[in-house]
Amino acid sequence: MKLGELVRELGGEIAGDADVDIVAVGAMESASPNQITFLANPKYRAKLAACQAGAVILSDADRDATTLPRIITRNPYAYFARVAQRFSPPREYSQGVHPAAVVHAGAEVAASASIAEFASVGAGAVIGDGARVGPGCHIGEGAEIGAGTRLAARVTVADGCKLGARCIVHSGVVIGADGFGFAPDFAGPAGGWVKIPQTGRVLIGDDVEIGANTTIDRGALDDTVIGNGVKLDNQIQIGHNVVIGDHTAMAGCVGVAGSARIGSHCMVGGGAIILGHLDVADRCTISAMTLITKSITEPGTYTSVMPFMKHEDWLRNASQLRRLGEMAATVKKINQGEKS
Amino acid sequence: MKLGELVRELGGEIAGDADVDIVAVGAMESASPNQITFLANPKYRAKLAACQAGAVILSDADRDATTLPRIITRNPYAYFARVAQRFSPPREYSQGVHPAAVVHAGAEVAASASIAEFASVGAGAVIGDGARVGPGCHIGEGAEIGAGTRLAARVTVADGCKLGARCIVHSGVVIGADGFGFAPDFAGPAGGWVKIPQTGRVLIGDDVEIGANTTIDRGALDDTVIGNGVKLDNQIQIGHNVVIGDHTAMAGCVGVAGSARIGSHCMVGGGAIILGHLDVADRCTISAMTLITKSITEPGTYTSVMPFMKHEDWLRNASQLRRLGEMAATVKKINQGEKS
Amino acid sequence: MKLGELVRELGGEIAGDADVDIVAVGAMESASPNQITFLANPKYRAKLAACQAGAVILSDADRDATTLPRIITRNPYAYFARVAQRFSPPREYSQGVHPAAVVHAGAEVAASASIAEFASVGAGAVIGDGARVGPGCHIGEGAEIGAGTRLAARVTVADGCKLGARCIVHSGVVIGADGFGFAPDFAGPAGGWVKIPQTGRVLIGDDVEIGANTTIDRGALDDTVIGNGVKLDNQIQIGHNVVIGDHTAMAGCVGVAGSARIGSHCMVGGGAIILGHLDVADRCTISAMTLITKSITEPGTYTSVMPFMKHEDWLRNASQLRRLGEMAATVKKINQGEKS
Repeated sequence: MKLGELVRELGGEIAGDADVDIVAVGAMESASPNQITFLANPKYRAKLAACQAGAVILSDADRDATTLPRIITRNPYAYFARVAQRFSPPREYSQGVHPAAVVHAGAEVAASASIAEFASVGAGAVIGDGARVGPGCHIGEGAEIGAGTRLAARVTVADGCKLGARCIVHSGVVIGADGFGFAPDFAGPAGGWVKIPQTGRVLIGDDVEIGANTTIDRGALDDTVIGNGVKLDNQIQIGHNVVIGDHTAMAGCVGVAGSARIGSHCMVGGGAIILGHLDVADRCTISAMTLITKSITEPGTYTSVMPFMKHEDWLRNASQLRRLGEMAATVKKINQGEKS
Repeated sequence: MKLGELVRELGGEIAGDADVDIVAVGAMESASPNQITFLANPKYRAKLAACQAGAVILSDADRDATTLPRIITRNPYAYFARVAQRFSPPREYSQGVHPAAVVHAGAEVAASASIAEFASVGAGAVIGDGARVGPGCHIGEGAEIGAGTRLAARVTVADGCKLGARCIVHSGVVIGADGFGFAPDFAGPAGGWVKIPQTGRVLIGDDVEIGANTTIDRGALDDTVIGNGVKLDNQIQIGHNVVIGDHTAMAGCVGVAGSARIGSHCMVGGGAIILGHLDVADRCTISAMTLITKSITEPGTYTSVMPFMKHEDWLRNASQLRRLGEMAATVKKINQGEKS
Repeated sequence: MKLGELVRELGGEIAGDADVDIVAVGAMESASPNQITFLANPKYRAKLAACQAGAVILSDADRDATTLPRIITRNPYAYFARVAQRFSPPREYSQGVHPAAVVHAGAEVAASASIAEFASVGAGAVIGDGARVGPGCHIGEGAEIGAGTRLAARVTVADGCKLGARCIVHSGVVIGADGFGFAPDFAGPAGGWVKIPQTGRVLIGDDVEIGANTTIDRGALDDTVIGNGVKLDNQIQIGHNVVIGDHTAMAGCVGVAGSARIGSHCMVGGGAIILGHLDVADRCTISAMTLITKSITEPGTYTSVMPFMKHEDWLRNASQLRRLGEMAATVKKINQGEKS
């Protein structure tokens, strides 16, 4: 594909040879003359000198940073992503229901949808136009899979849960398992936790991506709600009745406890835990492995991490953490003595 | 269902109109006149004034907090849970083995059990009365599923593992994968980790609930044991030879390392990690994201969390953690100077 | 099996009766007279006095620590592991493709491989000699499973990913889901995260073991690479383009973010998180629940954990963490006052 054709399709301005042939995207360090790369961060500008790519995508501010053929655009990284999509379109699946799938009576499967071997689709489920249900998936009764949504192998969407259009759900995801709701009743020898039926649903918007083995629980009474454009990485746990605003992104291993309400355009780092029944404002960034214990009302970056050290240093420093209150009292006393 | 019928079935005392019709449970803020709600925590008593529910479940201490029809009971939250169960009983499955399931020779499946499509049941496995094995489940050789136990879609119960009666196991759970046991042997160029065969089982009691994508490893020589009434949330990892006492509850993303022994009636917060080869006493509460590094011998609440802060505050404070030992020495020196 | 036969097969030196019959391995406290146990750590030497085992494996330094029949060897724990393997060899599976499996046209399945019910094998996939693909597994197009590698039930190996020989992959593992790569483009009302196609593969070496529900993402452009002899416990998340060196072992619930390069012979404790785009040197040990935020260039043990305390102690101490910078400034000021 010639550089000029790319620009006609995706926009942007060309500088240099519009006829260079591009067959793929590449990283700046390793791209070959038939690949296109990008410069988004000015701190990598010096690397352009050694770049062997056939063309570079960059911003107006960097337009003279190289003499290679180039595309000038407002957002070079997003442009690069769209070029990459152009060269690696999603795989196409054959339409129809594989003979080794089970579609229960009363399910509606669009003619253009693809249902793979060993998938089961429950009564009353609706599978939209061009949707893909991968091998070994289970779609519960009355569940809905929106148009163009793709489920990889071995995904569970439990009864009554709904996914919007153009979602991508990776293998091992479980949408709509029961939330963790029990009332303690330990009076008497037969006491125990009494299960609270989880009768809400999971409602997922459009253009959501959900990583491998992530779990999103159904609501207790009301629904768990995932907004449009939300991106969840692998191994994330979303508790019942959580609400996540549009375009929020969470890295791997995050946990969000029940009834937390996360705003839109938030970013949550890997392994962070957000406790339940609290609110996180729009446009918050939560650092990796941070524990959020109360509501956050203002945008900003929030962190609660102990810095790592050589273990022997940690031993010396961490032992003081058990007497920090005492140390603070001593310092206060001395300081008051100084002042008096 | 009339309020009076509920009380005849589940106990408690009625105040007000016993003939009000109740069709569902609801939250205090949103319940409509044909729903019943509850008051368990006196701090929400003021909300009763605006409550539109048809009836309220509350304790004797709160019996006069509203003029709505009400049920007075010892444990309003547990009563509410039982009413909710009454209105939302577990789904019933058709008995028998789906033609697209594979039951290997020598397995015993109760006539009243339900085996879904694409489930496989190994030789010598036993599926109890009224049990449900969901779509795509794999039950290993010689495994046992107790009466009334329900496995959602895509659950693995490996060879020889046993679940008691009335358990609920959510999608993606893996019971009985090998524990993580290797002996290091790095002498010579062909060195490596030598696998220790994991020949123990997982033994799970009655009335246990296990959340989506949780994993419980089989024992190395002895068994991994989960007591009666234990409730495990999603994405929990239980290592080999762990023992968990009755009615202990763990929130999502908890990890318990090999050979830890957790008492009964414990509560473990989300994302906590309990190291191996240690004991946790009965009735301990472990806070979210806390790391337990040694045995706990007394009931109580235990915590090891760095409080979260705005990132710029964290930078200023956390940098001091690397020199806390030094600071403590300085304070000690000054303090001794003061005293002398 | 007589002790003498064991030594002829596995090496080592016998002291005492070579004719004692051994049928299994056991723990030192509970082994019976027809079981063999081991002593690897001299601190357990005193327990030998009460040991009822038929024989003991120990090192030359401990050769006189008991009068029981014994095997003297360089590495008693590894020897014990090999004896355990001898008594509990891996289960054998019947060769061939189960009639309820789907093997797509163009896949190559070795005659000695075993493909279980409800497994699906994509076009162009290669299943090696003696390999096992368990029930409900999905092997993508062009994926390769090496000779003797065993996949438990419900494993996903996505298109184009490769596993070496003699690997063990537990239930629920997902190899080759898309990495978490998006370019932000929020200009305009239709803005959102733009997906970067993940076109790299996952390449896994020989003798790798992967625990239940662990996920390893495919690379964005280049591959994600797992070295030979790597051992990953359950519920681990490995991001795209991560490289893990030979024989590194990771405990449960670890997360490794994209493009991190972990050396060989490292050990990573449970729940640790390693951020992306950094290097960890060979032979590093990372403590449980530690967050690695920058590259580590030297072997050693690294830790970042807040010690756990009774909750009331934690409240007193942790509150000071929010003013640690202030406290440090006060101490510095006082100390300078002292000195002047």
